[in-house]
Amino acid sequence: MVAQLSMSRRIRRTPYTDRVERAGVREFTVVNHMLLPKAYRRSVEEDYRHLREAVQIWNVSCQRQVRIEGPDASRLVQMMTPRNIGGARSGDCLYLPLTDWNGGIVNDPVLLKLAEDRYWLSIADSDVLLYALGIAAGADLDVEVSEPDVAPLAVQGPCAPDVLALLFGEEIRRMGRFRFRRLDFEGTTQIVARTGYSSQDGFEIYLRDATLGGALWDAVWNVGQAFDIAPGCPNLIDRIEGGLLSYGNDMTRANNPLELGMARLCTLDGSIDCIGRAALVRIARAGVARTMRGVVFDGAPEPGCATPWPVTVDGLPVGCITSAARSPRLQRNVGLSLIDREFWNPGQPVAVQTPDGEIRPGEVVAVPFD
Amino acid sequence: MVAQLSMSRRIRRTPYTDRVERAGVREFTVVNHMLLPKAYRRSVEEDYRHLREAVQIWNVSCQRQVRIEGPDASRLVQMMTPRNIGGARSGDCLYLPLTDWNGGIVNDPVLLKLAEDRYWLSIADSDVLLYALGIAAGADLDVEVSEPDVAPLAVQGPCAPDVLALLFGEEIRRMGRFRFRRLDFEGTTQIVARTGYSSQDGFEIYLRDATLGGALWDAVWNVGQAFDIAPGCPNLIDRIEGGLLSYGNDMTRANNPLELGMARLCTLDGSIDCIGRAALVRIARAGVARTMRGVVFDGAPEPGCATPWPVTVDGLPVGCITSAARSPRLQRNVGLSLIDREFWNPGQPVAVQTPDGEIRPGEVVAVPFD
Repeated sequence: MVAQLSMSRRIRRTPYTDRVERAGVREFTVVNHMLLPKAYRRSVEEDYRHLREAVQIWNVSCQRQVRIEGPDASRLVQMMTPRNIGGARSGDCLYLPLTDWNGGIVNDPVLLKLAEDRYWLSIADSDVLLYALGIAAGADLDVEVSEPDVAPLAVQGPCAPDVLALLFGEEIRRMGRFRFRRLDFEGTTQIVARTGYSSQDGFEIYLRDATLGGALWDAVWNVGQAFDIAPGCPNLIDRIEGGLLSYGNDMTRANNPLELGMARLCTLDGSIDCIGRAALVRIARAGVARTMRGVVFDGAPEPGCATPWPVTVDGLPVGCITSAARSPRLQRNVGLSLIDREFWNPGQPVAVQTPDGEIRPGEVVAVPFD
Repeated sequence: MVAQLSMSRRIRRTPYTDRVERAGVREFTVVNHMLLPKAYRRSVEEDYRHLREAVQIWNVSCQRQVRIEGPDASRLVQMMTPRNIGGARSGDCLYLPLTDWNGGIVNDPVLLKLAEDRYWLSIADSDVLLYALGIAAGADLDVEVSEPDVAPLAVQGPCAPDVLALLFGEEIRRMGRFRFRRLDFEGTTQIVARTGYSSQDGFEIYLRDATLGGALWDAVWNVGQAFDIAPGCPNLIDRIEGGLLSYGNDMTRANNPLELGMARLCTLDGSIDCIGRAALVRIARAGVARTMRGVVFDGAPEPGCATPWPVTVDGLPVGCITSAARSPRLQRNVGLSLIDREFWNPGQPVAVQTPDGEIRPGEVVAVPFD
C-alpha cells in the first residue's frame, strides 16, 4: 500500500537523507515528524534475506533522543515507566514502556543511561518530549528536557561487528547486547550501542552533530563493501518473526504493557512509583483480558495492516492482527495479534479476515515464532 | 517535492479516507499520525482559484481534538497558554499558542469551549495530548484528558454558507466567526464552527462518530453540486497570502509567540499564570530579536520549503523563508519569513537563496500580503 507523500519542512529531513536518496530510496514513512526510509530497490523479502546474511545501513534518525538531565532526571524517568531503572549503570540501554494514568502505553523507547543525572530516551513515534516537559512543569522538577542534535544510524545484520570493527576497532566485538560505549569517529566522540530494531546482531551509532552525517554514512558504506553492505530499513518480516512490536501499529495508548508480554518489565510491588502504577496493579490483580500472540495462517494477502485484521472463532471476534507478512522461514503468513483470554492457547484454530474479503484458516502460536 | 509514502496502521486512516481516495487524491502528508490529503487532480494554483470562487470539502480529520474535562479543566488549559481564556464563553473558538518553559511554541490549536469544565483543543502537528497528560499527572490535577472520536470536515470558500445552509438550515448564515453551534445531522448532534485553515469564509464540522463519515461527506458533496464543490485541502498559496502559519513549517519550539506576531494573544501582566510566562516576560522586556514578515521576490523556484531558504543582505544572513509559493494575485513569489530586527522594516531589499542555487532579489513586506 503506497501513496504519494507531499514534502515540507514539517516532515523533517535527516543528516543522511541526501545519501538515502542517492542510494535509491523508493518509499518513506513519517516517524516523529521525520522521514524514515521504508523501501529501496529490492522487495521486503529480498531485503529480509540480505539482512539475515550480510549487513545493512539504516537511516533511523527518526529515533529522536529526548535528553533528560539535572538533579531530578532519575526521578522524572522513573515517573514515566513501570520498569525499575534503579539498578541501571552508566552505559546500559534499557527497553521500557512509558505509561499514562491508565497504564496505557505512551511510547516504548530504549533508555540510555549516560550518567547518574543524564539520560536519553530513544523513542518510537510519539512526542515523548512533550510528555516529559509536561510532567516536569506540572511537578516543578529540577530538570532540563531537550531534543539534542543526535541522528542514530543503525548497522544491522550478522556482519555488523565486522564492519564496525574496521571503523571503531576490535573492542566493538566485546561490547555486550544493550550496552553502549563512547568511541572515536574522525576526532569526535560518538555513542555506539549494541542495539537495533531487528532480530539480528547489530549496532546503532548515535551521531552527535548533523554536519557529520554524510561522512559517517560514507565511512560505514566504504568499509561495508567487503561484506556486501546494502541500504536498508526496519524489515517487516524480520521484526514480526522476532516478535518486535511497533508503536502505533501493534500497540497504542489503548494497550497496557501487561497484555503485551511486558510483565517482566513492570515492577508493581511498591518499590517504585510511576504514573499508571495503580491502574497496572488493578489490571495485574484481575488478570489481563487479552494478550500478544502470533497467528499463522494460509493464503497470499498483501502484507502490512493499514487497519487491524479481525481474528474470529466460529464467526465471533476474538482479537485482531496488527502486523502481518509472509514468513519465508515458516512458509506461512505470520501476524502479531492481540487475542482474548479464552482463545489465546497455542494451537487454537482461528479464522483471519484479510482486506481482500477472504476468510483464511489459521492457528494461534507463541511469539517469537519458531 | 513528492516521494512514495509507505502505509501502515500507525499512519491512521480517517472516516473520510475511502471518499478522498474515490475523489482522486494524488498526495497525502502525515499530521498527528494521520493522513491529510495534500493534492487532488488539479494544481495548487488551480485549487487556489477555485477556493476563492466556489467551495471545497476538506478532510482535516488530522486536526485531532484533545478533550480536557473536569473540575481543573480551565486551570489546565490556562497553564498551557499565555492567552487569557478567562473571558471565553461556551460556544467560543479561540486561536492560541501553547508554550513550554522557554516560551517556545508547542502547538497553535483552536480552543473550543464546550462548557465551563469542558474544552477541546483542535490541534496542529504535535502530541498536545501527551503535554496535557504530563502536566495533569505532574501537578495532580482533577481532569480527564482524552482523544474523542471526532473527525473535523472543513467546508471552505465563499459558497460555504450556501452549502451548509442547505444541510443545517439558514441559521448557519448568522453564526459569527470563531463561534460554534450544536446542529442536527441525521438525528445526531454535531458541532459546527465558523472556522477553517483558509483565508476565505468557511466552516468546520466536528463529526462525532466515525461511522457517520461517509454519510456526512456524501451529504456535503451532494448539496455542494449546485455550487461547483470540489475536494480540496489547505492551500499553500491561500494560506501564505493570508499569513496563516503552519506549525512545524513556520514555527517550532525554537520560536516564541512574541516574534510570530502573537503579542496580542499573550497576557503577560500577571493576571494569568502559564508555563513559559517568566520567559515571555523576559523576551518582551528585551524586545524580540526577529519577527514574522513577508518577503516578495522574483524568479520561478519550486514552491514549498523542505528546508528554510536563507534571506541575506549584502551576503550576510538576516533571516529565512519557511513557506513560499507564487502568488497569482501579486504576480510575484511570496514567502513567510523570520527577519532580524535591523532588517525587518517593510521595503528592506533582500536576496533569497532558493534550493536551485539561485540568488533572487526581493523585499521585506508586512503580512498578510496586500
